[in-house]
Amino acid sequence: MEEQLKDIKMPKTKRGLITFNKIIKAAEKLFGTKGYYNSMINDIAYKAKVAPGTLYIYFPDKYTLYCYLLTQYNHHIREYISSRVKDCTTRKEQERVGLLAFLEVIKERPYMYNIIWESLYIDKNLFVDYYESFAKRYVRNIESSKANGEMKDFDSMLVSYVLMGISNFVGLKYVMFDESKKSSDIDLEKIADEVIEMLEKGIFK
Amino acid sequence: MEEQLKDIKMPKTKRGLITFNKIIKAAEKLFGTKGYYNSMINDIAYKAKVAPGTLYIYFPDKYTLYCYLLTQYNHHIREYISSRVKDCTTRKEQERVGLLAFLEVIKERPYMYNIIWESLYIDKNLFVDYYESFAKRYVRNIESSKANGEMKDFDSMLVSYVLMGISNFVGLKYVMFDESKKSSDIDLEKIADEVIEMLEKGIFK
Repeated sequence: MEEQLKDIKMPKTKRGLITFNKIIKAAEKLFGTKGYYNSMINDIAYKAKVAPGTLYIYFPDKYTLYCYLLTQYNHHIREYISSRVKDCTTRKEQERVGLLAFLEVIKERPYMYNIIWESLYIDKNLFVDYYESFAKRYVRNIESSKANGEMKDFDSMLVSYVLMGISNFVGLKYVMFDESKKSSDIDLEKIADEVIEMLEKGIFK
Repeated sequence: MEEQLKDIKMPKTKRGLITFNKIIKAAEKLFGTKGYYNSMINDIAYKAKVAPGTLYIYFPDKYTLYCYLLTQYNHHIREYISSRVKDCTTRKEQERVGLLAFLEVIKERPYMYNIIWESLYIDKNLFVDYYESFAKRYVRNIESSKANGEMKDFDSMLVSYVLMGISNFVGLKYVMFDESKKSSDIDLEKIADEVIEMLEKGIFK
């Protein structure tokens, strides 16, 4: 993915940054609602209220703009979770707060699933890289928790995909599917607590 | 989804069934590789070696053909898993064999994820229905295992999404991402065993 990003010209002025951000926001909204294939560069420019030519100052094409957005999501999710878990003192607490942070971050950006998963249809390698890069960091984390005696000795890669699967599908259900329910009806804290209890005590009797 | 399916004319002759199946197979291949939006009715007819008019005998449009395929996947996955778990005597064994059966079924049909998840971009309700209908059955199952003392008293809906998340992401990693590895290098039995051990004993120390 880094390959594509080198063709982006980042804005050098404050004014440029404002324009750049308007483009990103418009692309996010259009990719998220109409999808990548149904969103044209001209539509994005129109929605961002910039000339199509302006868009090409920063991005050589729609694909690069999409890759930029995907990378931003990856960074944003990681940074948000890191900042939330930094004061946790146990692995279990880290997983609980990390899951909660993930649910919060997708709640705040409702198009996130659509945009991330559409990579599977745009370029499968983007999709694979997206999850494999998450997993790689997760594995390092799990390895150190195994080393300091906080986690059992399961295969770290398998554990990372188990945990990512849980977060993603719990998010699907309680953030995306149930979005029409009143926020007060969905207690993300309680959900995270219960998932961690399952991961601690197991689900079978 | 049932609504769309009533517009399908099922074949009445053996010859018709052969043609119908050729269309389904071609659609599966095209949707799975080029995606729904990049696959036209004419492309599907061409690949199935039938006249485009023939395709319209059975399906009023591409959308209905897609819905049919999605419903077939849903049935196929459920039936395959049911047939595999029917002789299991404990809940834990059911989950183990069920996970293994899920991994086998996606291995046998490599386009399954692409086609199922693309529903999110075609009609979000299809995607929601797909997982909610799976979850509904899972919940009934979990409820009865809780009642007979085989599962702990967690929220059944939450447990169902946790388990679906695990299956789907373990499948992504070990079937879809690692498809280029030799089959002999990936031991799905061992993966299923280890996941069930996590679900039994928990992952924390």
